Amino acid sequence: MYYSKLFGKTNKSVPHDADSANARLLVQGGFINQLMSGVYTYLPLGLRVLKNVQQIVREEMNAIDGQEILMPALHPKENYIKTDRWEAMDDILFKLTGAGDKELALSSTGEEIVTPLVKQLVTSYKDFPVAVYQIQDKFRNEPRAKSGLLRGREFSMKDLYSFHLTEEDFDAYYDRSKEAYSKIFQRCGLDAKLVEADGGIFSKYSHEYQVFTESGEDLVFHCSCGFAQNKEIAEVKEGDACPNCKDGKISVDKAIEVGNIFPLKTKFTTAFNFKLQGKDGKMTEIIMGCYGIGPSRVMGSIVEVHHDENGIKWPESVAPFKVHIVPVKWADEVQQKLAVEIYGKLEEAGIEVLMDDRDKGPGEKFKDADLLGMPYRVTVGRGAADGVVELRPRATGEIEELSVDDLLKKLV
Amino acid sequence: MYYSKLFGKTNKSVPHDADSANARLLVQGGFINQLMSGVYTYLPLGLRVLKNVQQIVREEMNAIDGQEILMPALHPKENYIKTDRWEAMDDILFKLTGAGDKELALSSTGEEIVTPLVKQLVTSYKDFPVAVYQIQDKFRNEPRAKSGLLRGREFSMKDLYSFHLTEEDFDAYYDRSKEAYSKIFQRCGLDAKLVEADGGIFSKYSHEYQVFTESGEDLVFHCSCGFAQNKEIAEVKEGDACPNCKDGKISVDKAIEVGNIFPLKTKFTTAFNFKLQGKDGKMTEIIMGCYGIGPSRVMGSIVEVHHDENGIKWPESVAPFKVHIVPVKWADEVQQKLAVEIYGKLEEAGIEVLMDDRDKGPGEKFKDADLLGMPYRVTVGRGAADGVVELRPRATGEIEELSVDDLLKKLV
Repeated sequence: MYYSKLFGKTNKSVPHDADSANARLLVQGGFINQLMSGVYTYLPLGLRVLKNVQQIVREEMNAIDGQEILMPALHPKENYIKTDRWEAMDDILFKLTGAGDKELALSSTGEEIVTPLVKQLVTSYKDFPVAVYQIQDKFRNEPRAKSGLLRGREFSMKDLYSFHLTEEDFDAYYDRSKEAYSKIFQRCGLDAKLVEADGGIFSKYSHEYQVFTESGEDLVFHCSCGFAQNKEIAEVKEGDACPNCKDGKISVDKAIEVGNIFPLKTKFTTAFNFKLQGKDGKMTEIIMGCYGIGPSRVMGSIVEVHHDENGIKWPESVAPFKVHIVPVKWADEVQQKLAVEIYGKLEEAGIEVLMDDRDKGPGEKFKDADLLGMPYRVTVGRGAADGVVELRPRATGEIEELSVDDLLKKLV
Repeated sequence: MYYSKLFGKTNKSVPHDADSANARLLVQGGFINQLMSGVYTYLPLGLRVLKNVQQIVREEMNAIDGQEILMPALHPKENYIKTDRWEAMDDILFKLTGAGDKELALSSTGEEIVTPLVKQLVTSYKDFPVAVYQIQDKFRNEPRAKSGLLRGREFSMKDLYSFHLTEEDFDAYYDRSKEAYSKIFQRCGLDAKLVEADGGIFSKYSHEYQVFTESGEDLVFHCSCGFAQNKEIAEVKEGDACPNCKDGKISVDKAIEVGNIFPLKTKFTTAFNFKLQGKDGKMTEIIMGCYGIGPSRVMGSIVEVHHDENGIKWPESVAPFKVHIVPVKWADEVQQKLAVEIYGKLEEAGIEVLMDDRDKGPGEKFKDADLLGMPYRVTVGRGAADGVVELRPRATGEIEELSVDDLLKKLV
C-alpha cells in the first residue's frame, strides 16, 4: 500500500477526550476515528489490526472444536424474560421497539439466543459436546464509555458457548479453553494472567485474563506462586502472606481484563428447560460454559502495553503491515527506484508493505513511522546508489545496514 | 468436516412461514435458523456461504481502489438532522435512546456517517478521488419481513461511497463500478441485468442489478436491445415498441434487486458542507456516489436461481464445501477406508470436503446431499474394493465412474 493513497493519515492533534495511550495513538495514527463517545470507525489501518486479532482468535477457537456461527444482534425480549435478565441488565442493554411494537434488545451477550438454538438443533446425547462461537459486534449502553477501545458502547466480541452432558466433560473443556486463551494472548503479544473471579451462584470461581498495565481499571491481588484474584473476591490485601503457597507475599497491580471464561453450569439451560435423555435413558441437565474475548479491547490493550513516547510498537502477528519502507527522498530517482524494487520483491514474497511515497522531509517520515509502529522500518537513503539500505526493528530501534539481498533474507 | 460433527443438520420439517425457496431450503439444509421474522442465525454451513459471497465482493471492491473500513452501527441523531432524514426515514430506521438520553439510530445506510468522516480526513484536492467501503450488518425496521434472506430486518450489506472533484471523474468511476458489479454477480453465478431506476433530484437515473426469477418482488420492463427500467420509472407496458431500439418489443419479468448504484452527486456533501479548494484555487463541491450490494440477499438469490425440487445447487464459487463424499455404507471397512483416503487427499490439495460419516441408508444420504447442494458428490460404494468411485456434479446429475487417481485429477 502506498501511503499517499491510504484513507486515514497520521494527524498531530491530540483528541480532546483521549484519556489513554490507545485512544491517543490509534486516533493520531489514523487507525480509528471517533464518531461519538465509545463509538469508533475502524479506518483501513485499524481494520487490518482488528481482523488480524480476530483471525488469531478464530484459529484457536477452531482448534478446540469451536464451530463458527453468526447470531443476530436484534434479540427478542421474551428470551430475556425466561432468564430474568430483561430488568436485571437494564443498565447496559440497549432496548428498542420494532415494527408491531415488538420489544427488542441489542446483543450485549449471547446466552439468551444460543441456549434455545442449541436446544432446538442438538437433540441426541450422541451429538455432545457442542461448542459454537461467533465474532460479532456487541453493544453496551455504557454511561461512562472511556479509554478508547477498552470500554466502548459498540465493540467486537468473540463469544463461545459449550454444552456438555457431564461435569467431567465440562471440566475437561474448560481446561482446554484455558490453553486456547493462553495461546491467543501469547500470539497477540500480551502477557495475560489467569485470575480467579466471582463464579456466580453455580460455581466457586470464574476466570479472567488480566494484562498488567498502569492504565488498567481492574485491580489484581497476586503472588509469584500463581495465585491471583480480582478485587471483587480477594480476601487479602497488599503485603499479606499468600493464602495459597504461604511463603509469598501478595502484590497488587492494575490490569485490563482481556478475556473471561465462566462456568455457567445449568443457569441458562434450566431457564430454557434444556435437558435430554442420556445414554442411560435418564433425563440429563445440560451443563454450559461461556468464553469471551473482545478483539477490539485486545487491540487497545496491545497498544497500552506496546508503545513508547513516539508511538505504537505492533507485534508482528497483528501489525497492519510487517514492513514500512521510508525513502529519505522520494523525489530522488535512485532511492525511489530501489524502494519500489524492494516493495515489489517483498509483496511478491507475500509480505505486506507500507510505502511512504510522500514528498516530505525524513524527520516527518521517521516520526510517522514511529507513530504507526510497523515492526520493521526499511530506510532507503544515501546508500541506495550502492544498493545498501537500513533495517530498523521498531521494538529495538537498532539500525543495521544491509544489502538488498541480505534484507530480503532477513524479512522473508 | 465430518457431517456427524457439524452443528446444524438437515431437517425435514418445512418452516411454517417459508414463503420462498431460499427460506425453505436454507432452513431445511441447516444453513440458517430463524430467530424471529426477518432475523436469522447463520449456522456453520450458511456462514461459509455468506463469507464466500462477502469475499468475492471484497475482492472486486479492492480491484476498483475501494478501501475497506468499518463504521459503527450506532448512529447519532444529529447527523440525520443535517440531511433531513431523521423523520423521512422514520418507517425503516430503528431508533433507540442511549445513556444520557442520547437519541440514536441503527445503521440502515451509511451516508450520514461516511460523508462527515471523509470531510474530516481528506482535506486536500490532491487526495481525490476517494472510495471507501464496509461490509457491515445493517438494520431495517421492516414491517413485512419476508422471503427468507431476501427481505430481512437484519442483513449483511456492502456499501461503498466514492467522492470526486469533477463530474467527469465521478462518471468514470461510476462506469468502473458497473464493471465490478457485473464481475461480482457473474462470479456468484447470477445473471444480473443492469436496470435504470429513479435517480432522485440530482440525477436522471440510478441503476439496479436485477436477477430475473419468478420469486422476485420487483418488475422489470426490458427489451433484448439492453433497455431495462424498473416499474417505478417505466413509461412503457408489456408489448410496447421499445423506446430505445424501436424494433424490439417490451417484455415484463419478475426480478430480485441484488445491487444498486446511485449518483448521489452533491445531495449529502452539501448537507455536510463538504467542499474544498481545488487545484485552480476555487472552492469545489464534492461529488459523491454510493454503491450497495447485500451479500445475504445475494446468498438468498443464488438459492432462488440455483435449485431444483430436491434442493440447492451451489455454484462452486460460493459453495460451503466443493465436494461431498457419501460412503454408501459407513460401517463397511473397505468403503470407509477409501472414503477417508480420498478425503485426506482432497483436503491436502486445499479442497474443502464434507464427509457423510453417518450410519444411515444411502437413500437418506443421497437425499441430504441433494438438499445441501455441494457441487460434486463422490459416492463410495461397491466399487470401493476395486478403487472405483462415482462422481456426480450436482448441476448435471450425470454420474461418472472413476478410479481415485482420475477423480483427483478432475477435482484438484
